[in-house]
Amino acid sequence: MRVGFVGLGLMGAPMAMHLIRAGLEVAVYNRSPGKAAPHGEAGAAVCASPAELAGRSQVVLICVSDTEAVESVLFSPEGVAGALEPGGLIVDHSTISPTATREFAARLAGSGISFVDAPVTGGTKGALEGKLVAMAGGKSDDLERARPVLEHYAPTVVHVGPVGQGQLIKLCNNLVGSLHVLAMAEGFHFAGVLGLDLKLTHQVIASGAAGSFIWENWGGRLVEGDLSPGFKIALHHKDIRLVLDECRRVGLELPGLQLVAGMYEKALALGLGELGDQALVRVLEQRSGK
Amino acid sequence: MRVGFVGLGLMGAPMAMHLIRAGLEVAVYNRSPGKAAPHGEAGAAVCASPAELAGRSQVVLICVSDTEAVESVLFSPEGVAGALEPGGLIVDHSTISPTATREFAARLAGSGISFVDAPVTGGTKGALEGKLVAMAGGKSDDLERARPVLEHYAPTVVHVGPVGQGQLIKLCNNLVGSLHVLAMAEGFHFAGVLGLDLKLTHQVIASGAAGSFIWENWGGRLVEGDLSPGFKIALHHKDIRLVLDECRRVGLELPGLQLVAGMYEKALALGLGELGDQALVRVLEQRSGK
Repeated sequence: MRVGFVGLGLMGAPMAMHLIRAGLEVAVYNRSPGKAAPHGEAGAAVCASPAELAGRSQVVLICVSDTEAVESVLFSPEGVAGALEPGGLIVDHSTISPTATREFAARLAGSGISFVDAPVTGGTKGALEGKLVAMAGGKSDDLERARPVLEHYAPTVVHVGPVGQGQLIKLCNNLVGSLHVLAMAEGFHFAGVLGLDLKLTHQVIASGAAGSFIWENWGGRLVEGDLSPGFKIALHHKDIRLVLDECRRVGLELPGLQLVAGMYEKALALGLGELGDQALVRVLEQRSGK
Repeated sequence: MRVGFVGLGLMGAPMAMHLIRAGLEVAVYNRSPGKAAPHGEAGAAVCASPAELAGRSQVVLICVSDTEAVESVLFSPEGVAGALEPGGLIVDHSTISPTATREFAARLAGSGISFVDAPVTGGTKGALEGKLVAMAGGKSDDLERARPVLEHYAPTVVHVGPVGQGQLIKLCNNLVGSLHVLAMAEGFHFAGVLGLDLKLTHQVIASGAAGSFIWENWGGRLVEGDLSPGFKIALHHKDIRLVLDECRRVGLELPGLQLVAGMYEKALALGLGELGDQALVRVLEQRSGK
């Protein structure tokens, strides 16, 4: 199968590499072309535009940063939509607006192109290890067509409903994750101020009823003084805004979400956007002066 | 070794049962005596007071609900302190005030009695399966004396510092846990209002970067409509107040903790205290009218 992969960021780069290593015929495209070099060396065709990539592909996979970027990859003059053969399939791994997702799918259906939203969870760790979980919205037939490709980096692909539902469940996932980040930040700030040994605190709490993926992994980086991103503050903030959009649409107020949204905004204002989620503890430190 | 176990609640009952089944010589005491019947049938000596229990024991284990209950078990006229032989050892598995813990230990040291605070995490599930994690504060010698007993229900016993530090790290654990409960409650409330399939949402999120012990276990009960306690709202609220006490002592404000403290108070006001943590979602439902 001829496969195109658009977006070679922290998540997309290792995902695309799994496909190349599995022996698929892979074309890649990234807005800043330097990032495609390792994939080119590994045997992928490095394309100059999404349209060129689409012309070589039966299935196009997308993993970019936001709704606007997906729209541009699909519908700009050099986009995928104008170049993919009718009968082609697009799978979007980005986390974007569920409403925009439904609009994109309807527009593509007019050209005979199928669309599946399949955002992933598992972080860069999951992407590197090829152990992501994908939550897919779309038609069963389309999903089954995509599954043999996706399984090279997402052994668990769960069909959660029609187009857009993958995004909605992913937003729920990132809402829950943002509050786990808050939990991690307050836990470590408390431990630090009260004089507990941070490594021991990390280890003991990870193994019990207050354990979480985020405590274990992002917290593990934090106690090593490593603020590098498994998931960037700026991207998580973008997802939190999408959750707030959905809440506004249905008239729902979630107090924890609102608190954490304010803290992510503060983190951006402090210039922490390119750091990992674990840097949220700096907002608490700044706030408490401790 | 002759061992006494005081407090046969949701946690203590299965913990004591592991000791009996392992063939130790076990005495038990519970304030409401009915709860000791299964232990008596399994071969334990059922005692009429903590003092009677202490008279038969070299090591006394305590797992009761709060600081006042531990003080009463230790120092009431029929308490452990007056009846345990000098050289005896007390291990407290309750979650109570770190400051009171240090006072209790100092008072007991005057009678030649050693004290270790060893609160546990892992919930009733961990207690039933004998897979708890204990975070122990005290002298190394005392802890090593206790370890062969504790290991029957807590294969992981981590020595975290002097007396009181076990409690402090446990409070940090329960602070983190309370925010995971908030995350679970907001996640399921969002999913419910937005029309997602709750079982699917539970399953997909559990397996990725937003997974946690609490999401998996308490959330699993919630989607089955089961509000029975793995950890009771009223007890978690008690621990949240202990965290707030420690914060106040050092002049620390944690915004998430303060938010969640208010929600647990609301839950108590709604009469949810004897239900499990997962019932916190009812506070959100009541608040949003959805």
